[in-house]
Amino acid sequence: MSQNLKFAVIGGGSWATAIAKMLCVNLPEISWYMRNDAAIEHIQKYKHNPNYLSSVEFDTTKLKLTNNINEAIEYADYLIFAIPSAFLSAELEPLTVSLENKIIFSAIKGIVPETSLIVGEHFHIQYDIPYYNIGVITGPCHAEEVALERLSYLTIACGDPDKACTVAKILSSNYIKAKISDDIIGTEYAAMLKNIYAIAAGIAHGLGYGDNFQSVMMSNGIREMRKFIKKVHKMKRDINDSAYLGDLLVTGYSVFSRNRMFGNMIGKGYTVKSAMMEMSMVAEGYYATKSAYKLNQGYGAKTPIIDAVYAVLYEGKNAKTVFKKLTESLD
Amino acid sequence: MSQNLKFAVIGGGSWATAIAKMLCVNLPEISWYMRNDAAIEHIQKYKHNPNYLSSVEFDTTKLKLTNNINEAIEYADYLIFAIPSAFLSAELEPLTVSLENKIIFSAIKGIVPETSLIVGEHFHIQYDIPYYNIGVITGPCHAEEVALERLSYLTIACGDPDKACTVAKILSSNYIKAKISDDIIGTEYAAMLKNIYAIAAGIAHGLGYGDNFQSVMMSNGIREMRKFIKKVHKMKRDINDSAYLGDLLVTGYSVFSRNRMFGNMIGKGYTVKSAMMEMSMVAEGYYATKSAYKLNQGYGAKTPIIDAVYAVLYEGKNAKTVFKKLTESLD
Repeated sequence: MSQNLKFAVIGGGSWATAIAKMLCVNLPEISWYMRNDAAIEHIQKYKHNPNYLSSVEFDTTKLKLTNNINEAIEYADYLIFAIPSAFLSAELEPLTVSLENKIIFSAIKGIVPETSLIVGEHFHIQYDIPYYNIGVITGPCHAEEVALERLSYLTIACGDPDKACTVAKILSSNYIKAKISDDIIGTEYAAMLKNIYAIAAGIAHGLGYGDNFQSVMMSNGIREMRKFIKKVHKMKRDINDSAYLGDLLVTGYSVFSRNRMFGNMIGKGYTVKSAMMEMSMVAEGYYATKSAYKLNQGYGAKTPIIDAVYAVLYEGKNAKTVFKKLTESLD
Repeated sequence: MSQNLKFAVIGGGSWATAIAKMLCVNLPEISWYMRNDAAIEHIQKYKHNPNYLSSVEFDTTKLKLTNNINEAIEYADYLIFAIPSAFLSAELEPLTVSLENKIIFSAIKGIVPETSLIVGEHFHIQYDIPYYNIGVITGPCHAEEVALERLSYLTIACGDPDKACTVAKILSSNYIKAKISDDIIGTEYAAMLKNIYAIAAGIAHGLGYGDNFQSVMMSNGIREMRKFIKKVHKMKRDINDSAYLGDLLVTGYSVFSRNRMFGNMIGKGYTVKSAMMEMSMVAEGYYATKSAYKLNQGYGAKTPIIDAVYAVLYEGKNAKTVFKKLTESLD
């Protein structure tokens, strides 16, 4: 059955490349949209994405590469979005084909800045996609380890469990284990919030705090995340599942996380502006911090870590002073 | 008030040295027992422990060093034990003074092999110490970062909250924040169990599993720990508190943890015997694995990670095969 389903990947970055690789294990063909013409040409000619996970070799006979998002959307039943949330609105602007009856999975870990919504909510509200056609693909999963075919676990959440199962089955392989979940809101918020805690971990590291403090930060981070998500969408979930805690840990403890790296630069004394200029990739957590902070003005969850990161990134407060005060709120 | 209380540290290792350092911040004098005469002499002469945390300088006018455990016990109201659990029975053998009315805090993260009891239970059952005189000092806290005076959080658990408060107050300083807890059983089991998960993390790393898998392991580890401790002692606790999750993370993610290092050697192909010979320090988790496994024969908690580590360490099973099977039980 799954042989007949058509999948498209939207995005040309490292996570999009990892997903394209995973899909190619079980599918005879996929559509893959990216806006970078030179990258498309390079993949067609050399079988490698020149910019991300360039060690991965693709069987190009399986790839319908396109720089036209309409072509990719028209082709597919299942659309997997893996572009930075900050670019989502712009990427969808040229849309002429309908999204009706399309099944949309978000592999984006962030907030759409224009609407302050997570991606699932954004598609639901802005494009009238019913929740049974919306899903989330979440880690803990560094794209780099998918490239190396190191065993990784994914969680596939969807309002419709059959669709979650379909996607889980197609992504599974000898190095990918995928489980399903019905918590599309919670898993997506977790994926977004963890980037804020990764920035916090980076700032702390940059300021000279050690491993003992880092573990306290993560322990407080997961409790804070539990409170926040409970306010957004109350349901029975185990916050220690891999999709929540695992995802927080793989990001918070990773020296490769761009969010942690961004925080580290701030902790070391860079201004927000210069840290952003220094990094050529987008730190999703930067936007997530603002959205989570603003959202929580309504929810009123106790979130000292998010508040501290917000104060540093958006209120121009001194990181050292803010984090010194934060240490009083943690336990 | 606390000025008049007398404390003794039992042990000469890195954690004992860190505790002696912390106590000296707020106390005019402590007794410090260690069996190594040469180390005592060295500290008296050069103000540094020659073998552990040797960067720490002591005000030797505050130290009543002794190689006679009876002297230390007689001196003190509060005894803080920080020796490997495997040596506890032997160290207590020459005991001639009474432990009656002594307040005993365990900073030992392990199981007493002779009785298969955690240290608090051991003192309660073997020495008739009432639980209101028994406490636990737990991290997340690498001794090495105490030496560097990097901000660290401790949890002080005791059946009697006043005594927990006293110890917390005396250990607190500009780089130590101590909170109290009434979960003396759970915190001590967590401190013991985390070493098993650190061995598991090490084995996985040695076998070539990556960071994605490691985060899944920790996420499953904390859930397994929660189930296990709930069977041992059911009470309201938040397993994500620093004393449980934080302690697991600081050990599981530390490349300096001797338990993780021990596991790593096994994963890389060393036999258990040769890995133990190669390391000059005791890996507490080795004994903890056996005790936890045996205990759980009665409790029946689902503990695939403990079972896997047991199979490798005590049943001579092949680590690669056992962990391949373990990956099927995790999610």
